[in-house]
Amino acid sequence: MYLKYFPILDWSKNYSTQILADDLIAAVIVTIMLIPQSLAYALLAGLPAEVGLYASILPLILYTIFGTSKSLAVGPVAVISLMTAAAASNFANQGTPEYTGITILLALISGVILILMGFLKLGFIANFLSHPVISGFITASGIIIAASQLKHIFGVSGGGSNLYEILQNLLFDIDEINFITLILGVAATSFLLWARKSLKPLAKGFGAGTTLSDLISRTGPVAAVALTIFTVWIFKLNLFGVEIVGQIPKGLPKIAVPRIQYNDFIQLLVPALLISIVGYVETISVAQTLAAKKRQRINPDQELIALGASNLGSAVSGGFPVTGGFARSVVNFDAGARTPAAGAFTAIGIAMATAFLTPLLFFLPKATLAATIIIAVLSLVDFGAIKRTWRYSKTDFSAMISTIIMTLSVGVEIGIITGVGLSIFLHLYRTSKPHIAIVGQVPGTEHFRNIKRHLVITNEIIFSLRVDESLYFPNARYLEDFIYDAVTNQPLVQDVILVCSAVNYIDASALESLEAINKRLNDSKVFLHLSEVKGPVMDQLNKSHFVQDLSGEIFLTQYEAFKKINMRTTK
Amino acid sequence: MYLKYFPILDWSKNYSTQILADDLIAAVIVTIMLIPQSLAYALLAGLPAEVGLYASILPLILYTIFGTSKSLAVGPVAVISLMTAAAASNFANQGTPEYTGITILLALISGVILILMGFLKLGFIANFLSHPVISGFITASGIIIAASQLKHIFGVSGGGSNLYEILQNLLFDIDEINFITLILGVAATSFLLWARKSLKPLAKGFGAGTTLSDLISRTGPVAAVALTIFTVWIFKLNLFGVEIVGQIPKGLPKIAVPRIQYNDFIQLLVPALLISIVGYVETISVAQTLAAKKRQRINPDQELIALGASNLGSAVSGGFPVTGGFARSVVNFDAGARTPAAGAFTAIGIAMATAFLTPLLFFLPKATLAATIIIAVLSLVDFGAIKRTWRYSKTDFSAMISTIIMTLSVGVEIGIITGVGLSIFLHLYRTSKPHIAIVGQVPGTEHFRNIKRHLVITNEIIFSLRVDESLYFPNARYLEDFIYDAVTNQPLVQDVILVCSAVNYIDASALESLEAINKRLNDSKVFLHLSEVKGPVMDQLNKSHFVQDLSGEIFLTQYEAFKKINMRTTK
Repeated sequence: MYLKYFPILDWSKNYSTQILADDLIAAVIVTIMLIPQSLAYALLAGLPAEVGLYASILPLILYTIFGTSKSLAVGPVAVISLMTAAAASNFANQGTPEYTGITILLALISGVILILMGFLKLGFIANFLSHPVISGFITASGIIIAASQLKHIFGVSGGGSNLYEILQNLLFDIDEINFITLILGVAATSFLLWARKSLKPLAKGFGAGTTLSDLISRTGPVAAVALTIFTVWIFKLNLFGVEIVGQIPKGLPKIAVPRIQYNDFIQLLVPALLISIVGYVETISVAQTLAAKKRQRINPDQELIALGASNLGSAVSGGFPVTGGFARSVVNFDAGARTPAAGAFTAIGIAMATAFLTPLLFFLPKATLAATIIIAVLSLVDFGAIKRTWRYSKTDFSAMISTIIMTLSVGVEIGIITGVGLSIFLHLYRTSKPHIAIVGQVPGTEHFRNIKRHLVITNEIIFSLRVDESLYFPNARYLEDFIYDAVTNQPLVQDVILVCSAVNYIDASALESLEAINKRLNDSKVFLHLSEVKGPVMDQLNKSHFVQDLSGEIFLTQYEAFKKINMRTTK
Repeated sequence: MYLKYFPILDWSKNYSTQILADDLIAAVIVTIMLIPQSLAYALLAGLPAEVGLYASILPLILYTIFGTSKSLAVGPVAVISLMTAAAASNFANQGTPEYTGITILLALISGVILILMGFLKLGFIANFLSHPVISGFITASGIIIAASQLKHIFGVSGGGSNLYEILQNLLFDIDEINFITLILGVAATSFLLWARKSLKPLAKGFGAGTTLSDLISRTGPVAAVALTIFTVWIFKLNLFGVEIVGQIPKGLPKIAVPRIQYNDFIQLLVPALLISIVGYVETISVAQTLAAKKRQRINPDQELIALGASNLGSAVSGGFPVTGGFARSVVNFDAGARTPAAGAFTAIGIAMATAFLTPLLFFLPKATLAATIIIAVLSLVDFGAIKRTWRYSKTDFSAMISTIIMTLSVGVEIGIITGVGLSIFLHLYRTSKPHIAIVGQVPGTEHFRNIKRHLVITNEIIFSLRVDESLYFPNARYLEDFIYDAVTNQPLVQDVILVCSAVNYIDASALESLEAINKRLNDSKVFLHLSEVKGPVMDQLNKSHFVQDLSGEIFLTQYEAFKKINMRTTK
């Protein structure tokens, strides 16, 4: 029974040497890509570089055990690193052990939240983040991340949690620009930009296949890291004020269960929840995109558990919140990973690098990592989506643009909360005023259509209306108002027929409204009838007294209703 | 153009001496009823008795100018008084001038909120309070109010903001019970209970008509007030520890615009918003119930403005938040009020009482007011509604019972917020998993029905599904999952047809999901088709690239789609 929580038991049954070979190749390529990224995202999260490596070992192994996606690669990603920095900065100063402690707690609480959501099958909560909101949020985050890295390119102190603060601090520090850092930073950025654009066609020109060319084009960051380390070392640029990564503690992370106090838990709950949900949305989107390409299945609830376990793994090994990254998962997929085992092999690769290669990173300039981040997040910024949303729906656009504005001007947490709150509000607003058509009979048929669009037969004694929405609390009162208004304005009306063909559900609020309508119409000697009530809705209505109390009748079809009432009233 | 905000200009045109006479009679009866109620609700709100009278003068005059209901009587009501006490107690101690100041600010901010909502036509916000939530909230409030008044009946100090605290404090003070107060309180309560039950049949027995008997039965509180004042005065019970109202400042309230500081404004915003919304829901329900009886119209947005103006009036004349009360409006209606002018005449009556009669109230025991409140709120407690909701819908019941439990155990604000939050959450949860039917052709017809309920013709190459809900962010991903799962489990499928007959709306999130579905199905060589797309939905889709990018076709009817694809694939 509990075995279903361990998908590894399924896919490992058919594991073969051929699959092993494929997974190993993918792992080597992802490892090479992941080392500079891990370091860079640790920097973005305001953490020592080695923490990025720590967060790329145990989480990957745990995902291998619990994950259902064959291609997903978890680890530190840009947006989550930014959110971690934003949350932790409220509690401690970057660079202090307290700060690192807070990021560990964020991973811990995120892990617990995600696992709970998984067991309780609450994955649908991620749906509350609508596409325009998440897209706007990621665009705004990309802009903030890029801006926040400029300080490393300029070699100044900088800082700030929203765009305004970041730019203001940059301007304030403009006198202190370190020009050697600037040259190095601009060179690294230009190189990465060039590599992204031209390395692929170049590789193809040398006869490499599409997939291989793709993979070669991803080696840009590693090349940039190697080249700038060499440059700094040769010219001893660190003595001229170029900030370098410096001494990275050698060896694997120590495993320790973090202790947490009640107060910290309460204060970190909301940021951790936001990190969990944004991380989950990113994970599930990537996982589904890649699974669909091979007609594979992923299990969204199990993914919550896997992502939660990964975050717990990160927390106990001194890391920070992780999630399934888009770029690295695509690389993993393209490189031919066939099972989650590729992730475990990647973890081994990173662990070996952590154990043995960190001395090589001593001279790595922070400007290079900043350049890596800037180039990586540029692909997150999607102004086209803003335009498309504007054209498609003004409602969605307003949720999107509010998210962007609040994220840029106040911060990531307020940004995402505004987006979710506004999109729920606008959704409720829309359904609170459903489309109601007054219908009449199409001559010579049994059909009833909107009197505004068709030439139909009506009757000043019978008032038939069709509500194109389920009846529930946001629109219950609207229906009342609509019917009272209509009946008040048409004093000849003696019968109201509510056509329920589009009603899939009637909640207790709408039931009370129907009861009130029935009673009040009855007070003014008007009968209320229903027609075309669906089976499940009828079953529900039968649980109440409404059917007995109804002044009129319930008809199977609107035609029958109209005919019978018409006969009765003309008699 | 601005005249529409002054409904008085409409109805006053046809004002006649006959209408005047009717309005005056109603005003006299409501005045008699309102005096003890105003004093009692001031006591409930933790305010000096005269404040209740102040809140029943200017607000009524302003409602006469701005209101659209012919029968509504505004003033202090039980639930709003309780909410006022709960909010103000967080900022100052009852009995202090600061406390009174806070209640004035609550009325001021409520007034501003309501007027803004009226101008912005935001009345629909009241819909977010579903019937089960408001019903549960009022039941729980009734219980808390009754419990909170027991201290006056027992003659002890008591206090507390939730049921647990109130009962604990009562138990704690049990030694200090004043038995004369207790006898008086129990006597008053019994008398009121008897009056409520037996005065009406008694009056009928003496030959009074139904309406007159109704009105006589409402005089119970006034009689109780008069009788107990006389008793206390004769036996000098105030010297034996019976708490009395005492000196009430004679004369009309002074008009003063309250000053407000930014910090107070921010802190009082949420309580004031809750008071506004609960008050508005009560007002609009009463106004609509009574208007419908005479086929009259009320304007919900104008009611917001009228209620807002009333609260501003209360604030500038030293009062506290007011709203349209159920009991007094029914009395006003039954007594034959024909225009809002009856309210203005009631205001004049209360003003005269405030100016001249307050010395008579010196010996009024607080226990009598408490008894009035207890009897009044007992009618708010509706356990039957809990049972009915349980039977009708478990979802609605869970929102209702959570509201009740949180209101009783924590307090009114948390209670109402829990209820609203939970009902929105449950609504989103429900729509996030819409009913999706896999359909097949009913043999020999053009109809397509659920394969689970009907014997239909299907085809392992064509997969037709019908979603019984509009497509938008809460369910966008669910549709993706559903289709991916289905296609993964049926490897023979080559064509997916989405039957859109029940789709009234497709938002940007759902559009992106459709685009993703199209792309991913295409990746695995499956075509996506749509059928029965409604006109407005088609218009919206045409604003995007989806129609051009669609791998399959868009068909007018499902029959046409099935026929054409079937022919193509069997060729």
